[in-house]
Amino acid sequence: MQQRRLQGALSEPRGAETPGTAAETMAPAGAKRNILERLDAGEVVIGDGGFVIALEKRGYVKAGPWTPEAAAEYPEAVRQLHREFLRAGSNVMQTFTFYASDDKLENRGNTQRYTGQQINEAACDLAREVANEGDALVAGGVSQTPSFLSGKSEEDVKALFKKQIDVYVQKNVDFLIAEYFEHVEEAEWAVQVLKTTGKPVAATLCIGPEGDLNGVSPGDCAVKLVKAGADIVGVNCHFDPETCVKTVKLMKEGVEKAGLKAHYMSQPLAFHTPDCNRQGFIDLPEFPFALEPRILTRWEMQKYARDAYSTGIRYIGGCCGFEPYHIRAVSEELETERGFLPAGSEKHGSWGGGLMMHTKPWVRARARREYWEKLRPASGRPFCPSMSTPDGWRVTRGHADLMQQKEATSKEQLKVLIDKANQGN
Amino acid sequence: MQQRRLQGALSEPRGAETPGTAAETMAPAGAKRNILERLDAGEVVIGDGGFVIALEKRGYVKAGPWTPEAAAEYPEAVRQLHREFLRAGSNVMQTFTFYASDDKLENRGNTQRYTGQQINEAACDLAREVANEGDALVAGGVSQTPSFLSGKSEEDVKALFKKQIDVYVQKNVDFLIAEYFEHVEEAEWAVQVLKTTGKPVAATLCIGPEGDLNGVSPGDCAVKLVKAGADIVGVNCHFDPETCVKTVKLMKEGVEKAGLKAHYMSQPLAFHTPDCNRQGFIDLPEFPFALEPRILTRWEMQKYARDAYSTGIRYIGGCCGFEPYHIRAVSEELETERGFLPAGSEKHGSWGGGLMMHTKPWVRARARREYWEKLRPASGRPFCPSMSTPDGWRVTRGHADLMQQKEATSKEQLKVLIDKANQGN
Amino acid sequence: MQQRRLQGALSEPRGAETPGTAAETMAPAGAKRNILERLDAGEVVIGDGGFVIALEKRGYVKAGPWTPEAAAEYPEAVRQLHREFLRAGSNVMQTFTFYASDDKLENRGNTQRYTGQQINEAACDLAREVANEGDALVAGGVSQTPSFLSGKSEEDVKALFKKQIDVYVQKNVDFLIAEYFEHVEEAEWAVQVLKTTGKPVAATLCIGPEGDLNGVSPGDCAVKLVKAGADIVGVNCHFDPETCVKTVKLMKEGVEKAGLKAHYMSQPLAFHTPDCNRQGFIDLPEFPFALEPRILTRWEMQKYARDAYSTGIRYIGGCCGFEPYHIRAVSEELETERGFLPAGSEKHGSWGGGLMMHTKPWVRARARREYWEKLRPASGRPFCPSMSTPDGWRVTRGHADLMQQKEATSKEQLKVLIDKANQGN
Amino acid sequence: MQQRRLQGALSEPRGAETPGTAAETMAPAGAKRNILERLDAGEVVIGDGGFVIALEKRGYVKAGPWTPEAAAEYPEAVRQLHREFLRAGSNVMQTFTFYASDDKLENRGNTQRYTGQQINEAACDLAREVANEGDALVAGGVSQTPSFLSGKSEEDVKALFKKQIDVYVQKNVDFLIAEYFEHVEEAEWAVQVLKTTGKPVAATLCIGPEGDLNGVSPGDCAVKLVKAGADIVGVNCHFDPETCVKTVKLMKEGVEKAGLKAHYMSQPLAFHTPDCNRQGFIDLPEFPFALEPRILTRWEMQKYARDAYSTGIRYIGGCCGFEPYHIRAVSEELETERGFLPAGSEKHGSWGGGLMMHTKPWVRARARREYWEKLRPASGRPFCPSMSTPDGWRVTRGHADLMQQKEATSKEQLKVLIDKANQGN
Repeated sequence: MQQRRLQGALSEPRGAETPGTAAETMAPAGAKRNILERLDAGEVVIGDGGFVIALEKRGYVKAGPWTPEAAAEYPEAVRQLHREFLRAGSNVMQTFTFYASDDKLENRGNTQRYTGQQINEAACDLAREVANEGDALVAGGVSQTPSFLSGKSEEDVKALFKKQIDVYVQKNVDFLIAEYFEHVEEAEWAVQVLKTTGKPVAATLCIGPEGDLNGVSPGDCAVKLVKAGADIVGVNCHFDPETCVKTVKLMKEGVEKAGLKAHYMSQPLAFHTPDCNRQGFIDLPEFPFALEPRILTRWEMQKYARDAYSTGIRYIGGCCGFEPYHIRAVSEELETERGFLPAGSEKHGSWGGGLMMHTKPWVRARARREYWEKLRPASGRPFCPSMSTPDGWRVTRGHADLMQQKEATSKEQLKVLIDKANQGN
Repeated sequence: MQQRRLQGALSEPRGAETPGTAAETMAPAGAKRNILERLDAGEVVIGDGGFVIALEKRGYVKAGPWTPEAAAEYPEAVRQLHREFLRAGSNVMQTFTFYASDDKLENRGNTQRYTGQQINEAACDLAREVANEGDALVAGGVSQTPSFLSGKSEEDVKALFKKQIDVYVQKNVDFLIAEYFEHVEEAEWAVQVLKTTGKPVAATLCIGPEGDLNGVSPGDCAVKLVKAGADIVGVNCHFDPETCVKTVKLMKEGVEKAGLKAHYMSQPLAFHTPDCNRQGFIDLPEFPFALEPRILTRWEMQKYARDAYSTGIRYIGGCCGFEPYHIRAVSEELETERGFLPAGSEKHGSWGGGLMMHTKPWVRARARREYWEKLRPASGRPFCPSMSTPDGWRVTRGHADLMQQKEATSKEQLKVLIDKANQGN
Repeated sequence: MQQRRLQGALSEPRGAETPGTAAETMAPAGAKRNILERLDAGEVVIGDGGFVIALEKRGYVKAGPWTPEAAAEYPEAVRQLHREFLRAGSNVMQTFTFYASDDKLENRGNTQRYTGQQINEAACDLAREVANEGDALVAGGVSQTPSFLSGKSEEDVKALFKKQIDVYVQKNVDFLIAEYFEHVEEAEWAVQVLKTTGKPVAATLCIGPEGDLNGVSPGDCAVKLVKAGADIVGVNCHFDPETCVKTVKLMKEGVEKAGLKAHYMSQPLAFHTPDCNRQGFIDLPEFPFALEPRILTRWEMQKYARDAYSTGIRYIGGCCGFEPYHIRAVSEELETERGFLPAGSEKHGSWGGGLMMHTKPWVRARARREYWEKLRPASGRPFCPSMSTPDGWRVTRGHADLMQQKEATSKEQLKVLIDKANQGN
Repeated sequence: MQQRRLQGALSEPRGAETPGTAAETMAPAGAKRNILERLDAGEVVIGDGGFVIALEKRGYVKAGPWTPEAAAEYPEAVRQLHREFLRAGSNVMQTFTFYASDDKLENRGNTQRYTGQQINEAACDLAREVANEGDALVAGGVSQTPSFLSGKSEEDVKALFKKQIDVYVQKNVDFLIAEYFEHVEEAEWAVQVLKTTGKPVAATLCIGPEGDLNGVSPGDCAVKLVKAGADIVGVNCHFDPETCVKTVKLMKEGVEKAGLKAHYMSQPLAFHTPDCNRQGFIDLPEFPFALEPRILTRWEMQKYARDAYSTGIRYIGGCCGFEPYHIRAVSEELETERGFLPAGSEKHGSWGGGLMMHTKPWVRARARREYWEKLRPASGRPFCPSMSTPDGWRVTRGHADLMQQKEATSKEQLKVLIDKANQGN
C-alpha cells in the first residue's frame, strides 16, 4: 500500500488511558495560527460535524427541544464526540452550544438543573480540552433565537447573543460563529454583536439557492453579512452538500460582484435532500426520525469535499447527520491539498483499501476506487419512493403558528396542528 | 405527557465526571441474577448492538480486518459505546472480542502491539466496568475462525477457542456466546469448548431461512447446537430483523419438534436486506461502505422488537448497524413487558413525543405514533434502485478462494479477483 | 444482417386493401393440424394476448364491466387486433368472448343492443376470418361467471356455459378454452360442459403458487382439471410471467406425481406483479388505470418465453397487458425452436438490430443483445415506490360483498366501500 | 351517473361494417372551420398522438429507420389508428408522413417498393378518409432531414420539403405542420417553404427549456419561427408533458416580449423524462425499447391537459407514446371547456366511473377522482432506479458521427460506437 503520512501524535496509538498524553505533541494553544491566518494562506480548514443529531442517536440530546444541556450533564459523551472529530481531521472544535440561548433553554425546560451560563461554560471547557489534543481551534457559536421568530425587538435579540458571547470571551475561544439563521436580518444582528469582541467572525445561514425565508437571495445575504462584519460567510444545515455548495457559489458571486472580500465555508447536512423546498429538511416528512435512507456514504462525502474545494470554499465541515467517518472522508479527499491524512485514517484504507484483508474474496475485489465511485447503493426498501413531498405551511416570522411557548404543545393544540397537516396531504 | 418510569440511577443526570458515581445504585455484581434465571422467569433480556461497524464509523476499527484491538488501544472509545448501550437498556455487555482469536489477529497484523490475550483481557475489563454501572451482565464471545475456513482440524480450531475462553474464565464473565458462525459444525465445536467452563452458553449462527452454508436447515442447526450443550440458540448478523426473526422461528420449531428445550435469541443487522441470498449482506454490493440507505429507523426497530417478542424470542439484541438509539427503540417497544423505560429515554419521547417542543408547528404535528408508523421514508436517491443483486461466488469451506493469508491481497491477486467480479456482473 | 426466414405470405407486404389476398398461401382450414396434433408433436403453439385491456386503450371496451360487445359493435377494431397478433406469430385466435355469458352481459347492461348470442357469433366469425389468413386455429372461450360468485347452483352455472358452447359448436371452432377461474370447482364444471363437444379442451385458472381462492394447491387444481377432461392445463391472467411459469411448474409436478398426462399452457399478464397476494393484480392499488409502470419490455418478454419453454410449457401466450409486440417477442425468442420468424418481424430487427439505421450514433450503439439484456429501465417517477401494498379484503364466493347486481353501485353502496377501503390503508 | 354529452354520430354504435356510414353526420369537408378560425375563436383543438411508436408496437413500423411506408403497405392498420384517435377526440388527422422525405426513405431502404410520392399520397388519402368521418382537419407534415444533419445546403434541404409539400397541395390538406426540428434554423427553412402554399402553418421544435441544439433559447426560437411565417408555434416529442408545457411557456413569453402574436401548441411524449438533458429522450438509455415504465397514466395525462390549457396553449396533442386513451384523457379533462365528450367516452367512465360495475367490491371503491389523483403508481421493478443517466455525446450538425449513410451500420462501425458508449458509462 502507499506510504501514508498520518497526522501528529495521534497516529501513534496511545495505549494509555489518559488522553492528555497526546497533548505533549501539540504546540502551545497560544502558538496556533488563527482561523484567518490559515484561510488567508489558502489552507483548507476542516470543520466538525453536527452534535445534536449525533448525540441524539447516542442518547444524550432530546429531539424536539434539541438543546445542549448534555455539555454539563454528560461531559464524557460530548468530549468523546469532539475527540472523534479531531481524530477524523477537524481543525475546529465548535462549542456544543447550539440553541443555548436563555430564551430557548427556558422554553424547553432545561434550566432547572443548569443555567444557560453553566452549559455554555462547560461546552467551552470541553472544546478547549480536546482542541488542545491536536491542531484545532475553538469556535464559540450562537444561533437563531425563538425571540426573533416570535417577533421580539433587535435590542432583545441582541441581548441574548451578548449573554452567550460574554462566556466565550471569558473562556477565550479562538473565533466566533453565527450559524443556523433562516433570516439574514437576525444573522446580521448576531454578527454585529460578535464583532464587538474583536475576534474573527464566521456567519452561516441555513438557506438554499432560493435565499432566506424573506426571499433575500444568497448573493445579497452574503453581501449583508460581510458588510455587518463577517470575515467568513457561507451556509450550514438544512440542505445536502450539493445544494449547499451551489448556494455558497451564489454567495461568492454576490460578494465578488459587490467588490467585497470574504472567506467561504459550508457545513451541509449529511442527508440527500433533492426534494426540499426553501425551508429545507425540516419540512421533509422524514424529519427527524426517518432520515436514515438519506444518509450520505463516505464516497458521496468525498465528492462533496472535492466540489466544495473546486468552488473555492476553504472552510469545509458538516452539520446534522455527519458522523466522524464523514469528516474523515473529507480529510481523505483533500489529502493532497493538505499534505497529510488525519490520525483516524490509521483505521481506514483510502477508497476501501482495508478490504484487501477481508475474509471473502469477492469483498476483496471491492478494494478499489472505481468500484465505490460507480456504485449506486440500493435502499432495500421496495415500498418506499425516492423522493418525498415536503410540508409547505409557508409561515414566516411573526405568524401565530410560529409563536414559541415554554410549555409542550397541549393536546388541543396538537389536534389543530394534525388537522392542518392532514389537509396538506 | 405520560408518567414514565425510567430505569435506575441513570435517570438522574449525573453531573459529575466520574461515571462510577452511578454504581452506588446497583446491586453488587454477585447479586445479579444470571442470564438463565432471567430467561427461565420469562423476562426479556435486551442485548447490545454490534461494535465493529459502530466503532468503524467513529474511527477505531478498520473495515476489512474488523479486529478489536481498540479494546486495548482506545479504551475510552470502547467504554463510551458500552455505556451508551447500557443507557439504551442493554442487559448484556458483550466483550469487544469479535475476531479476537490469535489466528485472525495474526492474519490481520494486529498482534504487533498487543497480544490476543491483552486484547481479550482489556475487553473483559471494559465490559465489566460498565456492566457494574447498571443491571447488566458480561458475556464473553468467540466467533468463527479463519482456521476453520481454511480447512484446519477440529483440534486446531478448538484450541483457538480454548485460548480465548481461558481469559473469560479468569476474568469471570457471567456467560458465554458463540456467535457468527456460517457453518453449524464449527459452532458445535465452539459450544463444546464453552460448555467445559460450566457457565451458561448461547450460540448464534449468521444464517437465514435457507440454513447454513452446507445447507443444514435452521431447525436442524438449532437441534445440533442444543445437543452440543447450548442453553440459548438463535441467529446474529448477516440478515435484517425480519429475516432473522423468521429464521429463529424455524429454529424454535425444529427444537420443539425434536422434543428439546432452549431459550431463543436474535441479534440481527440494522440494515434492510430483502435482496440477500444465503450468504447474507456480505454479498450485497453495498457491503460495507454504502449500506447507509438500508439503515433501519427507530420505528422499524420497534416493529422488530414486537415481532421477536411475539415469536417467543426473549433475548433480543442487535448486531452490525445498531446504534444506541436502535437498542433504545427495542427497550421502548417492550416497556410494558419490562415495566420500565431505559435511562436513555429521558432524552426521547416515545413515538416522537419530544417533537411537541419543536419550533415549527408542522413538525409538532408529527409527535404521534400513527405518523411514524405509516411513514414510508424516501431515500432522496432517484438514481438508485431499491434492491441489489448480491454477488454469488458459491464457494464454501476449503475452496482455494477462501484460503486465508496473513498478507494483504497482492496486486496480482486483486486483479484476478476483480476479473472474476466483473464476469459475474 | 442475418438471413431471416419470415413466415408465410405475410412477409410479402400486401399493398392491396383486401386482407384476403394473403389467404391463398394458407392451407384449407380443414387441413390445419389441430391443437393436440401440434402439442403431441412437441411443437410450440403461440397464443395471442388479452383483448379487453388492449381494446380498452383503443377505445372499444369499458373498464369495469369488461364485456366484449365490441365484437358486434366495432368489428373492424376487433379484426385489426386479431390480425396484429396473427402477424406477431400467434397460432391461436381466441374468440373475443370474455365475460360473454348472458348473466354477465345482463348484469352490465350490454344486452340492450345485442344478445349474448349475437356477440358470441360475431366474435367467432372475426376469429375465423383472421385465422384463415395464416396458420392459426380458432379457440372458443368461457370464463368464470357472476352466478358462481353469487352462489348459484352447479346446474345454473353449467347452463350458462352450455349456452356459449352451443354457439362455438355451431360456428365450428377448432378447440375450447375454459379460462380465468379463481375457483377450481367452477373450472371443473366448465371443463365437463366443454368436454361434451368432443373438441380438445384447455383449462386455465387465474391463480398463483398459493393456489385457488379456496386454497387448493396448483398441483391439486391441475389434477382435478385433468380428471375433469382437460387436455391442456395451466394459468392465465392475474400474475406476471415469472409467477405464472412458477405456478404451471407446480401444476406439472402435481399432474406427473398423480401419474397423469397433460399439455401445459401459460397466458400471464404483461405487468410486473412481485407485490401481489393470492388474488393477483386486481388487488394492486394500480389496477386497472395506473398499471403503466409495470408493463413488461419486449426483452423481459423474451425471458418469459425462454423460461416457459424450459419449464416444459408448449402453449405460450399472454393475457392482459400484452400488445402485439409482446407476442412477437415470444415468437422471436423461440425462432430456433420453431424454425422461422413471424411475419411481423419484417418490421423488427432481433435484439434491437433495426437501430443500426438510427440517426444518432449512440443509439446505433444500442443495436445489440447485451445492451438490452443488461439494461434496468428507470421509471422516471422518483415519487413512486417500487412496490405496492395490495388490498386484502379476504372475501370469497358467497360473501355479501361479492354478490353481483345488475345496477351500477349506488352512491350509498360506494360510500360503504370507500370507508372499508380507507380503513384498510 | 352524470348525463354526458358524447360527440356526434360516433356515440351511436355503428353496428355496420362500413365506417363510411358515420360520414353522413358530418358537415361537408369544405364547410369545416379551418384551424385558425378555431384558434382565433379561442377553441381548444385536440391533436392526435404519435404514429411511429404506436404502429411499431402493432407491428407496422420499424424502430431505427422509423419510416412511414406502412401508409402504402398496410393501409388498414394506419386507418384504424387514425380512427381511434378521432374517436378519442382528435380534431386533427396528421398525415402519417414522418421522415417521408426522399433522402430519409432512400437512406433507410424504403423506396424499393414505394416511392416517396406514393407514400405521401397514400398517407393523405387515409387521413382525409378518416377526417371525413368526424369533425377533424387534415394536416400535412414535414420534419427534420438527414441532409441538414449531414451539412447540406439550404437549397438542397428546401427542395426536399418542396417535394413533400407538392403532394399535400395536390391532395388539398387543410393546413401544414413543420415538426420535430432540433435546430431552429432548419425549421425556419421549412416554414418558409410551407408558407408558399398559402395554407396555415404550424411549427414545432423538439426542444426543452434549454433551447435548440445550438443553444438558441425557446423564446428566441419562437420569435424566429413567427417571423418566418408560422401561425402556430410550439414543441413536440423529446420531452414529457411537464417539460413541454414549460418550454412553450418560455416561447410564449418570448413572442409576447417581441410584440408578436401567435397561437401555441404542444405535442409532448407520453413518457416521463425528468432525467433528460438537452437532447431529450433519445439519449435516455431506455430509448426506444425499454420506455415502458415511463408511460403516463390517463390521470397524469389529464393533468397535462389542464396545465397546457392554463398556460394558454390551445392546440393540445401528443407525440411518441400516446395511445388513443391518452388523447381521450385530454378530451375528458377539457370536457367543460369544449362542451362535450369524445365519442370514445361511451367506453370510459370519467375518473374511473366504470369501475362501479366491477366484480370486486374493493375495485368498486376506486371509482372516484380522489383515488386516482392521489395514487402514486408502483413500478413493480425493485431492481430498477427512478432515473437514468442519459448519454451525452455532445455532437451537433456536421460532426462526423452524425453523417448519415444509406447502409446500415457495419460491424466495424458498430464496434467503434460501442467502445465510445462504454467509455461514457
